[in-house]
Amino acid sequence: MAADILDTLEAVIRERRTGDPATSYVAKLTAKGRAKIAQKLGEEAVEAAIAAVQDDRDGLTGEAADLIFHLLVLLADTGLSLDDVRAELARREGISGIDEKASRHAD
Amino acid sequence: MAADILDTLEAVIRERRTGDPATSYVAKLTAKGRAKIAQKLGEEAVEAAIAAVQDDRDGLTGEAADLIFHLLVLLADTGLSLDDVRAELARREGISGIDEKASRHAD
Amino acid sequence: MAADILDTLEAVIRERRTGDPATSYVAKLTAKGRAKIAQKLGEEAVEAAIAAVQDDRDGLTGEAADLIFHLLVLLADTGLSLDDVRAELARREGISGIDEKASRHAD
Amino acid sequence: MAADILDTLEAVIRERRTGDPATSYVAKLTAKGRAKIAQKLGEEAVEAAIAAVQDDRDGLTGEAADLIFHLLVLLADTGLSLDDVRAELARREGISGIDEKASRHAD
Repeated sequence: MAADILDTLEAVIRERRTGDPATSYVAKLTAKGRAKIAQKLGEEAVEAAIAAVQDDRDGLTGEAADLIFHLLVLLADTGLSLDDVRAELARREGISGIDEKASRHAD
Repeated sequence: MAADILDTLEAVIRERRTGDPATSYVAKLTAKGRAKIAQKLGEEAVEAAIAAVQDDRDGLTGEAADLIFHLLVLLADTGLSLDDVRAELARREGISGIDEKASRHAD
Repeated sequence: MAADILDTLEAVIRERRTGDPATSYVAKLTAKGRAKIAQKLGEEAVEAAIAAVQDDRDGLTGEAADLIFHLLVLLADTGLSLDDVRAELARREGISGIDEKASRHAD
Repeated sequence: MAADILDTLEAVIRERRTGDPATSYVAKLTAKGRAKIAQKLGEEAVEAAIAAVQDDRDGLTGEAADLIFHLLVLLADTGLSLDDVRAELARREGISGIDEKASRHAD
């Protein structure tokens, strides 16, 4: 199976982090430091919140994409992955993390 | 293949939305209205941003889980799905959305 | 007594709201609509929060100034004033609003 | 002249910082550390932003009061004062800081 776009995006982000800031937004943002990435995450969440309250579905779709994108950049910058977050969510939901993880990597 | 925990969680959230606010956090939050859900999204992003700046990896893992959880609740409340956001991310990345989507649903 | 800079700034903002967006930031931001002003408020708060956590005092001073500035623009856009907020704070603190208000306008 | 409620509030906050967390919200929040205060600032800004977008004037008045209150707590925690922010705003506006400051302290 092809990877989830979220995982594909995460891989792309990790590769671009050390790229050329002149041509890569991820490299440029990463070069500005973690505080700047964290700031962008907060900004996108505020934008998503406002779009949702305004019932602007297209706007929310775009802002949610921005939010997830910047979350992935921030996770990468701290040495974390989306799988770490998935594991935490699975743990909370009481779903067997072992089965889940096994199946995700088995295909 | 078992579903991604993110999709499992989204399904659980959609089911719980109309549940009993006395026993379900999702039902309780949803009953408070979209502005309250949007507010929670903003709060979790701020907490994630602060945890990241403090290099608190465990904290960021938890806050990122909270952030995604509330994003899914907000998307559900506006009639959107994580797949809508995935499609937007795929579109931006220039990845063939057709192949991606086909493979995601083929297994 | 000369007015508090906060009141002076509020007066300037109210005057500039209907000015030329090409030369006035307030006019330009106001023309973009309330959601954009609200978004800026959220952004500045996130930046202030991050600066504080980093113990960046110069940064926090600047971000706090940005935050108050955008709060005044947002209040003006909704037909509210800093005095409305002062009245609410006075009410909460249990300070005699009458004496307070009388003295503020008496000089 | 009686002090501006903002300055009165700032003085009260500074006094309460080292008070009993069991009876003072300021002492309790301060004891939780700067990250928690910063987080509260971000939350209040998001709530203010949402209230503004919803054109909820009473809500915005209350959230703006909460925002300023927590900004003062955060400034106090970093050793800054509202006057530091006023000075920054005056500097930006190009108003004579000397005259402004002189008049503010002369009464």
